[in-house]
Amino acid sequence: MIHLSLIGIGTGNPDHVTLAAVRALNEADLILLPRKGDAKSDLVDLRRLLCETLLSDDSGARVVEFDLPRRSADGDYLGAVGDWHAAIARVWESLITGHLPEGGRVGMLIWGDPSLYDSSLRIAGRLDRAGRNVDVEVVPGITSLQVLTAEHRIPLNALAEPVQITTGRRLRERGWPEGAASVAVMLDSGGAFEALSPDGLHIWWGAYLGMDKQCLIEGPLSEAGPMIQARRAALREQHGWIMDIYLIARQPLL
Amino acid sequence: MIHLSLIGIGTGNPDHVTLAAVRALNEADLILLPRKGDAKSDLVDLRRLLCETLLSDDSGARVVEFDLPRRSADGDYLGAVGDWHAAIARVWESLITGHLPEGGRVGMLIWGDPSLYDSSLRIAGRLDRAGRNVDVEVVPGITSLQVLTAEHRIPLNALAEPVQITTGRRLRERGWPEGAASVAVMLDSGGAFEALSPDGLHIWWGAYLGMDKQCLIEGPLSEAGPMIQARRAALREQHGWIMDIYLIARQPLL
Repeated sequence: MIHLSLIGIGTGNPDHVTLAAVRALNEADLILLPRKGDAKSDLVDLRRLLCETLLSDDSGARVVEFDLPRRSADGDYLGAVGDWHAAIARVWESLITGHLPEGGRVGMLIWGDPSLYDSSLRIAGRLDRAGRNVDVEVVPGITSLQVLTAEHRIPLNALAEPVQITTGRRLRERGWPEGAASVAVMLDSGGAFEALSPDGLHIWWGAYLGMDKQCLIEGPLSEAGPMIQARRAALREQHGWIMDIYLIARQPLL
Repeated sequence: MIHLSLIGIGTGNPDHVTLAAVRALNEADLILLPRKGDAKSDLVDLRRLLCETLLSDDSGARVVEFDLPRRSADGDYLGAVGDWHAAIARVWESLITGHLPEGGRVGMLIWGDPSLYDSSLRIAGRLDRAGRNVDVEVVPGITSLQVLTAEHRIPLNALAEPVQITTGRRLRERGWPEGAASVAVMLDSGGAFEALSPDGLHIWWGAYLGMDKQCLIEGPLSEAGPMIQARRAALREQHGWIMDIYLIARQPLL
C-alpha cells in the first residue's frame, strides 16, 4: 500500500507553506524531487532548500531527486502530453518500488497548488490504473496567482463578477472570454495579451513570483504591454528561464 | 501611520494557515474580528479559536470583536454593496482610531484568500481615500475552492483548458460560460446549477469545507443535483447557516 501526498508548496517562499504541508513533508518516508533540466535548476535548488528548511531533524524522510522525462514537441499537443504523463508515471512507479518495496508514505512537492495547471493528479491516476494500490491525499498550497494578487494588492475578480483562468494558448486562439470581467493567464510562452485590443484593459503582471528575483509591472495594457515584453525578454536572457503570469481586467477591480 | 495586514486564514482548519499568516497575526498590535450575527456564530468561534491556537504567549496582539453592519436588501445590488462597504470602513476607522491612536499594526482575519470574492481590499481603499495613511499588506490564504478540489482529489481545470470562477447569480443569468471546460461557483444562495441543462455535466460539491462538519457530494449533475439540493436544505436547517461551493465540468478533469 502506497500513501501518496501531493503537497502544494506555494511558489518557493517558505513562509507561504501551510502547517499541513510541513506535517505532510515530515511524515513522508520518501520525498521525490523532480529535476527539469539545467535552465530551471533554480527551481530544484528552491525545492531542496524548502526540504532542508521544513524537514525536522527527527523526520525519517529520504529525499530522492530524479530527472523528469522530456515532453515530445512532435505530434498533437494532447497526445504528447498523454505520452509524457505515462512516462512520468513509469518513473514514479520505479522509484517508489525501488525505495519502498514494502509500501509507505510518498511526498511529492508541487509548485503552487495541485489543482491549478498541474498534472500530478492525472499522473497519480495512471499509477492507480496500472494496478497500484495508491491512496492519494492532496495538500493545498498557495498558487502564483494568489501571490500575484497579494503583491499587487488587488482582488482576482471585479465586484460580484466572474473571472476566467486560462492559458496563453487559449487567449491567443479565442480572445477575451465572453462574460468574464477579468482574466488570469498562466502558461503563456510570451505576449499572448497582444491578441487583445488593449483599449480599456488594465494588466497586472508578475514574474518569479514569491522568489527573491520577483518582478512586477502594472498599468494600462497599451502602455504596460510593450514594457512587459521587453522586461520579460531581458529577464529570460539574464536568468536563462522565466515563469510569469498576469491578470487583465476590463473594469475596475477595486 | 497604520499598517493593515489582510491575512488569509483559509477555511477554519488551523493546518491550512501559512507560516506567513501566523507571523502576521503575531506581529499585529490589534486584531479585528467581525461578528456577523447569530446564525453564523460558528465562524466567529472558529476565528477566535484560530487566534487562540496561533497567537504565541509573547504576542502583544489585542483581539477586538465587532459587529459587522448589515447590508441593506433594498435598492440595487451594487449600490447596496457600496453603502455597506462604506459603513464597514467607518467601523474599522473608529476601532483603529480608538485602539491605536498613535498608529500601529492592524491584522484582519480573512476567510480563504483576500483576492477571491472578498471585499477587504475595497474597504481598505475607502480608508485610504478618506485621508488615512494606510499601508496595506496582503497575506495569501488557502481558499475554499482549493479545499474543494483537494478533498475531491480533482484539478480545477481540465487539461490545458480554461476554468471560470463565477457566482450563483451570474450562472443563473448567463448559463454555461462560453469557452470554459469547467466552472467553479461561489456565493450561490442555492441550486443555481438548475439553470444548466445537466446532460454530460459532472458536479463536485462541498459544504462547510475545512470544518468538522464538512460534507461532500459528487456525481453526474442529473443525479447529484437533486441530492445536493436535499442535503443542502437539511444541513441549513440543522446548523442554521450554510456555506457551500461547487465545481462543474463538461469534460473529464483527470
